[in-house]
Amino acid sequence: MLKKVGEHTIKFARSPRIASSYAIVGPKEGLSPFAKYFDYVLKNDSFNEKSYEIAERKMLEQSITGATEKAGLLATDIDVLLSGDLLNQIISASFSARQLQTAFIGLFGACSTMTECLAVGACLIDGEFIERCACATCSHFSTAERQFRFPLELGNQRPPTAQWTVTGAGCCILARNGKGHKITHATFGKVVDYGINDMNNMGGAMAPAAADTLKNLFLDTKTTPQDYDLIVTGDLGKLGSEILIDLLEKEGFKLSSNYCDCGQMIFSNTQKAFMGGSGCGCSASVISSYIMSKLDSKEYKKIILMSTGALLSTTSTQQGETIPGIAHAVVVECDDN
Amino acid sequence: MLKKVGEHTIKFARSPRIASSYAIVGPKEGLSPFAKYFDYVLKNDSFNEKSYEIAERKMLEQSITGATEKAGLLATDIDVLLSGDLLNQIISASFSARQLQTAFIGLFGACSTMTECLAVGACLIDGEFIERCACATCSHFSTAERQFRFPLELGNQRPPTAQWTVTGAGCCILARNGKGHKITHATFGKVVDYGINDMNNMGGAMAPAAADTLKNLFLDTKTTPQDYDLIVTGDLGKLGSEILIDLLEKEGFKLSSNYCDCGQMIFSNTQKAFMGGSGCGCSASVISSYIMSKLDSKEYKKIILMSTGALLSTTSTQQGETIPGIAHAVVVECDDN
Repeated sequence: MLKKVGEHTIKFARSPRIASSYAIVGPKEGLSPFAKYFDYVLKNDSFNEKSYEIAERKMLEQSITGATEKAGLLATDIDVLLSGDLLNQIISASFSARQLQTAFIGLFGACSTMTECLAVGACLIDGEFIERCACATCSHFSTAERQFRFPLELGNQRPPTAQWTVTGAGCCILARNGKGHKITHATFGKVVDYGINDMNNMGGAMAPAAADTLKNLFLDTKTTPQDYDLIVTGDLGKLGSEILIDLLEKEGFKLSSNYCDCGQMIFSNTQKAFMGGSGCGCSASVISSYIMSKLDSKEYKKIILMSTGALLSTTSTQQGETIPGIAHAVVVECDDN
Repeated sequence: MLKKVGEHTIKFARSPRIASSYAIVGPKEGLSPFAKYFDYVLKNDSFNEKSYEIAERKMLEQSITGATEKAGLLATDIDVLLSGDLLNQIISASFSARQLQTAFIGLFGACSTMTECLAVGACLIDGEFIERCACATCSHFSTAERQFRFPLELGNQRPPTAQWTVTGAGCCILARNGKGHKITHATFGKVVDYGINDMNNMGGAMAPAAADTLKNLFLDTKTTPQDYDLIVTGDLGKLGSEILIDLLEKEGFKLSSNYCDCGQMIFSNTQKAFMGGSGCGCSASVISSYIMSKLDSKEYKKIILMSTGALLSTTSTQQGETIPGIAHAVVVECDDN
């Protein structure tokens, strides 16, 4: 008997627990509405390192060690690190894994990587292969900007559909036993491409994949958006969120005030982030701080976390390819102990 | 009770089956000693496409559809595609997933990605989350060369420690039931760095990680190299293989004539590939063709497959970082039905 409901959704037999979480962000993110929820805010976005790439991985490492400590664990208690990031060949994740000296499974789903890690990690725990894992991702405005777009020194203008890559990292420790919010379901997404080729409109590119995964989750679990206290997407931003709402309405599912998007929320309107935040670190840092604290306070009892990714590279864009999207979802219920 | 033996090794409860495999390679690889084992050899290395990147993903797609057909399955029978590749943001894998329209888990372990996919895929099946998955990776000499090293037009000289990126793709379909060779164990590797910073000496950079994973597998399962008919590494090449043999000998494990390396074997001495083949497609195509046929003929009954990866990027190299390595292993026993 497979642990599945419907076509696409895994129902865990003994819901893995989120034992702890830790979020670290850059100075701009530290001025956001979520400031008080983050565990650590950088004083400068180079984190006192000689390159932004080193700063990015140092944030990731701190999120992993921070979450491990908050769970009352030692690094040696973590069986596997699941991690990935936006940099070519996911160097932030693999260089962090080098420090951690635990088994490492490198994942890549662009900005969907956080929930991809949570979903795969929950499978490894529920399948009884491991006791605990760390699920962590990160991004940095300055590394992403210069890798994907333009040299920082150019001071390029940004179009109104652009999003701002979050400088931040987040880590959740999953455990087979003990206390913590429960991951009850996971839906792995498929790659969906609506033909958008504007790399400054990632929200639009990702929204169809987000709609597809959410629709599958609702149909498989025989639930509707109203059955959840919160449905939070990764970083569709303002425009992408509106497209998601429209697409789901056509499928008969109405997202209302219980829907929000990490990208849309992380910066205030005065912070000039246009459509909002993006990057693996966006949903990772918001999930690992604000969202977890709302589960802690039992304000939310049952939620959907769904990070969303735009699967492009500079090569694919330069060769005229469109931008495929993907979204992976997990259902989390608050610890009722 | 965890499905584990020792510290690092998973012992599957109901060994997932390798239902089928398919390998496709470029013209140079088609002249190799393994020529007769490959399912398809390209007539030209652009595969009649306008870019090498499109050719690479077309190979990957053909390997997935080819393996699916050989297993007597339809694309819709595959629950999840696990795939990754060397290109920035793993575009070969994600663009192939767009065609396949199945759930997609993007993985990245550089040239270790094939056994990373097999190990994670086997966990998803043994954990009873899915019925079947496709595990596939690819690489292309011309896309890797121009992304990681120099423009092809430069006709750069290659140092004697260099390896030659294999143009090829391989796919294995894993299934919970039915016939096929059995994946009995998996050992996820950790990131190991011996401080090598020469990106033309990948074998040397990966060998310590390979030694670490193999040592853990032997200790956990209380086996020695002599308990296996074959131990095959990913693409350490000639130099890396020698270093692995030395490192393991120091740990008390003697690799002998039952040890080989996909990178070392895939090109003949006259093919000017120096230390041998490399790239995700190297171990993927050799495992999915030659190795599987030797299990089919029962020449090998119990083997270890271990692809090895060098976790560098051009950015990490330009910033003076050393090259961390990783290796993931699976134990496969031949179908005795």
